[in-house]
Amino acid sequence: MLSALGRPVFYDYDPAFLATYERISLKLKQAMETKKVSVILHGEPVLALEAVGISVVGKDDVVLNLASGVYGDGYRSWLEPHCREYLDIRVPFNEVIDPAAVEAKLKERPDITIVTVCHHDTPSGTINPVKEIGAIVAKTKAVFVVDAVSSFGGMDILPEEVFSDIFITGPNKCMGCPPGLSMLAISDKGWAKMKANPTAPRGSILSVLDWENAWRKENGFPFTPSVAEVNGLEAALDLYLDEGPQAVWARHALTAKACREGIKAMGLELWAASENFVSPTTTAVRLPDGVEEAKLRQVMRDDYGVTISSGRGATLNKLVRIGHMGPTARPIFALVAVAALGAALTKVTGKTYDVGAGSAAVMAVIDAGK
Amino acid sequence: MLSALGRPVFYDYDPAFLATYERISLKLKQAMETKKVSVILHGEPVLALEAVGISVVGKDDVVLNLASGVYGDGYRSWLEPHCREYLDIRVPFNEVIDPAAVEAKLKERPDITIVTVCHHDTPSGTINPVKEIGAIVAKTKAVFVVDAVSSFGGMDILPEEVFSDIFITGPNKCMGCPPGLSMLAISDKGWAKMKANPTAPRGSILSVLDWENAWRKENGFPFTPSVAEVNGLEAALDLYLDEGPQAVWARHALTAKACREGIKAMGLELWAASENFVSPTTTAVRLPDGVEEAKLRQVMRDDYGVTISSGRGATLNKLVRIGHMGPTARPIFALVAVAALGAALTKVTGKTYDVGAGSAAVMAVIDAGK
Amino acid sequence: MLSALGRPVFYDYDPAFLATYERISLKLKQAMETKKVSVILHGEPVLALEAVGISVVGKDDVVLNLASGVYGDGYRSWLEPHCREYLDIRVPFNEVIDPAAVEAKLKERPDITIVTVCHHDTPSGTINPVKEIGAIVAKTKAVFVVDAVSSFGGMDILPEEVFSDIFITGPNKCMGCPPGLSMLAISDKGWAKMKANPTAPRGSILSVLDWENAWRKENGFPFTPSVAEVNGLEAALDLYLDEGPQAVWARHALTAKACREGIKAMGLELWAASENFVSPTTTAVRLPDGVEEAKLRQVMRDDYGVTISSGRGATLNKLVRIGHMGPTARPIFALVAVAALGAALTKVTGKTYDVGAGSAAVMAVIDAGK
Amino acid sequence: MLSALGRPVFYDYDPAFLATYERISLKLKQAMETKKVSVILHGEPVLALEAVGISVVGKDDVVLNLASGVYGDGYRSWLEPHCREYLDIRVPFNEVIDPAAVEAKLKERPDITIVTVCHHDTPSGTINPVKEIGAIVAKTKAVFVVDAVSSFGGMDILPEEVFSDIFITGPNKCMGCPPGLSMLAISDKGWAKMKANPTAPRGSILSVLDWENAWRKENGFPFTPSVAEVNGLEAALDLYLDEGPQAVWARHALTAKACREGIKAMGLELWAASENFVSPTTTAVRLPDGVEEAKLRQVMRDDYGVTISSGRGATLNKLVRIGHMGPTARPIFALVAVAALGAALTKVTGKTYDVGAGSAAVMAVIDAGK
Repeated sequence: MLSALGRPVFYDYDPAFLATYERISLKLKQAMETKKVSVILHGEPVLALEAVGISVVGKDDVVLNLASGVYGDGYRSWLEPHCREYLDIRVPFNEVIDPAAVEAKLKERPDITIVTVCHHDTPSGTINPVKEIGAIVAKTKAVFVVDAVSSFGGMDILPEEVFSDIFITGPNKCMGCPPGLSMLAISDKGWAKMKANPTAPRGSILSVLDWENAWRKENGFPFTPSVAEVNGLEAALDLYLDEGPQAVWARHALTAKACREGIKAMGLELWAASENFVSPTTTAVRLPDGVEEAKLRQVMRDDYGVTISSGRGATLNKLVRIGHMGPTARPIFALVAVAALGAALTKVTGKTYDVGAGSAAVMAVIDAGK
Repeated sequence: MLSALGRPVFYDYDPAFLATYERISLKLKQAMETKKVSVILHGEPVLALEAVGISVVGKDDVVLNLASGVYGDGYRSWLEPHCREYLDIRVPFNEVIDPAAVEAKLKERPDITIVTVCHHDTPSGTINPVKEIGAIVAKTKAVFVVDAVSSFGGMDILPEEVFSDIFITGPNKCMGCPPGLSMLAISDKGWAKMKANPTAPRGSILSVLDWENAWRKENGFPFTPSVAEVNGLEAALDLYLDEGPQAVWARHALTAKACREGIKAMGLELWAASENFVSPTTTAVRLPDGVEEAKLRQVMRDDYGVTISSGRGATLNKLVRIGHMGPTARPIFALVAVAALGAALTKVTGKTYDVGAGSAAVMAVIDAGK
Repeated sequence: MLSALGRPVFYDYDPAFLATYERISLKLKQAMETKKVSVILHGEPVLALEAVGISVVGKDDVVLNLASGVYGDGYRSWLEPHCREYLDIRVPFNEVIDPAAVEAKLKERPDITIVTVCHHDTPSGTINPVKEIGAIVAKTKAVFVVDAVSSFGGMDILPEEVFSDIFITGPNKCMGCPPGLSMLAISDKGWAKMKANPTAPRGSILSVLDWENAWRKENGFPFTPSVAEVNGLEAALDLYLDEGPQAVWARHALTAKACREGIKAMGLELWAASENFVSPTTTAVRLPDGVEEAKLRQVMRDDYGVTISSGRGATLNKLVRIGHMGPTARPIFALVAVAALGAALTKVTGKTYDVGAGSAAVMAVIDAGK
Repeated sequence: MLSALGRPVFYDYDPAFLATYERISLKLKQAMETKKVSVILHGEPVLALEAVGISVVGKDDVVLNLASGVYGDGYRSWLEPHCREYLDIRVPFNEVIDPAAVEAKLKERPDITIVTVCHHDTPSGTINPVKEIGAIVAKTKAVFVVDAVSSFGGMDILPEEVFSDIFITGPNKCMGCPPGLSMLAISDKGWAKMKANPTAPRGSILSVLDWENAWRKENGFPFTPSVAEVNGLEAALDLYLDEGPQAVWARHALTAKACREGIKAMGLELWAASENFVSPTTTAVRLPDGVEEAKLRQVMRDDYGVTISSGRGATLNKLVRIGHMGPTARPIFALVAVAALGAALTKVTGKTYDVGAGSAAVMAVIDAGK
């Protein structure tokens, strides 16, 4: 992707670039396996999340937001200001949403017009059952909005398979691009809902509607697209399609499983309440009591050259996260993360974490996975 | 810039990237010659223009927009919805704003709180006298917002020299980067105005305030910055500072002058009513009667490999534009543009445009400029 | 090509690189339109020229070198030391070889075993009739060695069409790569000749034989290949095959013709004695009397940003050369070269060269060529 | 380095490139800490080794080659053909040269004019005591030729500190560049020796003498240098000098030590007879009896994504090698190599290698090293 970013850049209004943009949009459609062509927005996925919020939610809407983590819960700030009534189902941030609860709520409140959910709530490393939820929402009039920013491309999640109407993701997580673009898959129902919303912005960076047909080479763009990032996206899509989605997903899954077994073999606990819903692209580890999270991450980076993430918001200081997205989704990298985590915890706590046992467990998973 | 975009990308939360970001922000401050550190926004300059509009304009504001072209006039759409009263001074789009008219209006309406102007209205290739205007605004309570998107870096325009409070530009015009970032220089008065605005967004892609201190390496970012584009910006700043602003500006000016003389030598007219206010980064040429603009541009591209721009909005089909920004600001490139324009017009109109005379005039300017 | 050079580099012994190398060798074969797979040597084409000299010429050989320019003549230094007898046909360096003279010499000396020729003698900008010469040599026992370093890829020259046995070229001239590789097409007769030569080197950077089967992914390399340059070669081959050889050649030819007409319209003379054998990839211009060549080139570079070349050896101070290879083979660039040359000569000599007439002539050729 | 390879390329005869080349040559001198400016040759280090052989050795020379491994021993093929008498000191390929033996030989044969040694014999992973040997040779008339191809930049080895007269290395091993260049440091005595050699080549890719002053921007080049690779070299030198040689060397040393301890903790043996002379840039591991080397490497690559090297020549099938050069010289990477080697051996042999113990040993070294 990076050398693609360094390719000579066409002016955005050059016919050659217009044709390139259409070709890349169609490749994205292929990767997303949708009937309609995907939309590219020219900013990091937070742009897409905010833009979808303001584009889809109008003053007559009743929104049901499903919140099982910091990101899902935080989406409220881009939903509540625009709607008639904001409802949510909240569960502890190491749990996931129960589809039965969604079904019940939709029965209780048939006036719900929008259901939103974060598929992979990264700060918790947990995966919501969006396909089951989507099947339920699809039977109602509500549109189903799925934040798949950090899951699409790294696991078995496709917009139409999960019955989504607006599916939001980006190339900078599981596809390994630098941040700077977002990608949307929108169903007919999704487009209709936004078009019917009188407050959906036009002529704004937050407009989704302006971009509906921008992919067609005849049309030009509402504003200048990020030409270099778009070149990078094509390179990422080529790699993804060449390796094959199934192979890419298996690679992420094996890496995460190796990581989890290594973590557990050192006596650590996963953050998620159950391994049934842990993410194959992020492993969240419960921080042992008394460990200073920032100190732990600093030791890992300074002494072993390994960068991991903290929690965010409600999960801050409760867990650390090991990413397995894009270029880091190689099973052997689980070994590096596990050993560095064990060694750093040993240093920071004085208590011994058995790096040997962790490493052996990682390798055993990799062996079994081949 | 492009090879810099291809550099290995740090994660945005890596301390090494935080330090890099601070260093680049300080280089940008140096290039802008301001007292306060500049702000980088992570989208093409239309993001910055919209974000400034919503951040600075509140429901009690009286806005005076100075409109001498399509871009200046179009800014209305991001000002009017937010303010108590929208005023403007409009002049024909081949003229520029008269500072005396601004002074008169400010006297007449001492309740004006915001004055906005587009420095270089690209679709007209004209330059407004922002320094003179700025000196007038500075004597009032109003904040002065300057759109310098396609002029900063290519001519003698600096935020504090023109008394601006909010100065908006981007690296993708005169600095030759691919599109994807914006840059803001904001005075104390500018910051104070936005902070006092109760409707200035926070927690939004349109928030300027969120980024005030994001450049400090201790702070982290409101959302993920465009890491690769930021690397490209540093390379562009290094080139700019190494060549020296005066030399860069002179290079743009000589290119544009050569272009204008070549144009005139072929019997064509400049769009601007007077050469006193033509842009050194864009040459707008009045389209001869009866010439189909799209056809002309297509011939130039297909037969000579030269890409020029159309007008926009009110100037569409009235002019064509030759850019002299960044990598194309080489005097000899004026020759290419002039000869291709003359040859294409000859083809399209059947009338002969004297390419030889145009070429000779271009070379004469270059010779005189050395 | 350049962004391809920046791609992540595999270790040369990695199976993935071995497969890449085979794929690129086969693409090169496709571009060269040969029956046997091409050989890549890992140094600039002078390496290939020297390596071929020492690999093909043995102590029993009688070599006939056809010398119509500095490069052809200079090849003597890599032929004469190894052979029993060195013969040549020399013509003035603004002429080319007459096939009849070759035929006569081969009749006179049936013991000739090797005939060598430089197809495009760059320091003269002239093209030898290698196809006609090749047809003559092919009727004898002699092997035919063709230096096509600065012609292959830019004009109608293919190894088997010209009956060559050893055909030497590189990607850094007409294909626009940076220097660092050479490419060879070798016939069965060519391989047999080198294998029969007891002094053909093995285990040396000068060995051609060591590389015969190195392209096969099973085989590995005699020494470490230039991995990044090989990636660049693939990108260049893709561009060449995508645009189509005929289109690429036509682009070079039109550029050179436009350049020649512009030159002549300013009253300058071409170096070549006849336009029947001028090169489509280099235009050599006779230096007017009394012009200091180095001064002329310096003015062109400093005042107009245009870099041209001097003569070499016997042609030094007699001509200047304008290249039309690879990225510079765009017709409009002929305009830049012609105008800058005319303007610089005017400055240097005090006499006026009519830049307008030159420019008009250039554009007229481009117009006629479309 | 790679993004530097993708930088726009100047023509080699452009004054800007001539100045760049001089600047880079001077940076190389700084890195090599020599009095004279270094020489860059435009081919992989085997070019430099062969070129030095033919340039320094004449028909009156008596050469003493010190052979402690496959590379040192193999240098014979580029020495013996040119000299009056070829002598050597050979030791088993898991030993290194004893300086006392060199001293004795030089006393016995005062007519020795050239002493050659391979500092780091990569196929054995052993380091010869070149400083001690150099001090001995320096007292004689002989010139001292050191092959430091895979050691310079990764450990404490500098041309003048080891009393070398011709010091051969390249940027593609410890400095992390792609292959394509060589670098030479040559003392006054070294230059004098080559100049006095009547058979030292001139006008050849094998000439060292032709390049003596090519670094000066006034001079131009014997043939076209590899422009893109030279840009890459500068980026590598900047990284090396910025990190600091001592820090770079320490990083390599710690990585290798961690690797060795991990290897031993799994019950494996190092190849070297003593750890006193193991390399900090390569760890050679004795292959357990009955293990098929190619199979082992394939399992490591296919199942764990780890590429290691085989032995060469006499060490083939006796050892495997783990590289710690340039970008792989990160201590945590030792963990990856050790665990993958243990796991692969377990698979291939059926016998259990304790990956946990190996991993723990690696981490213990890293911890102790901080």
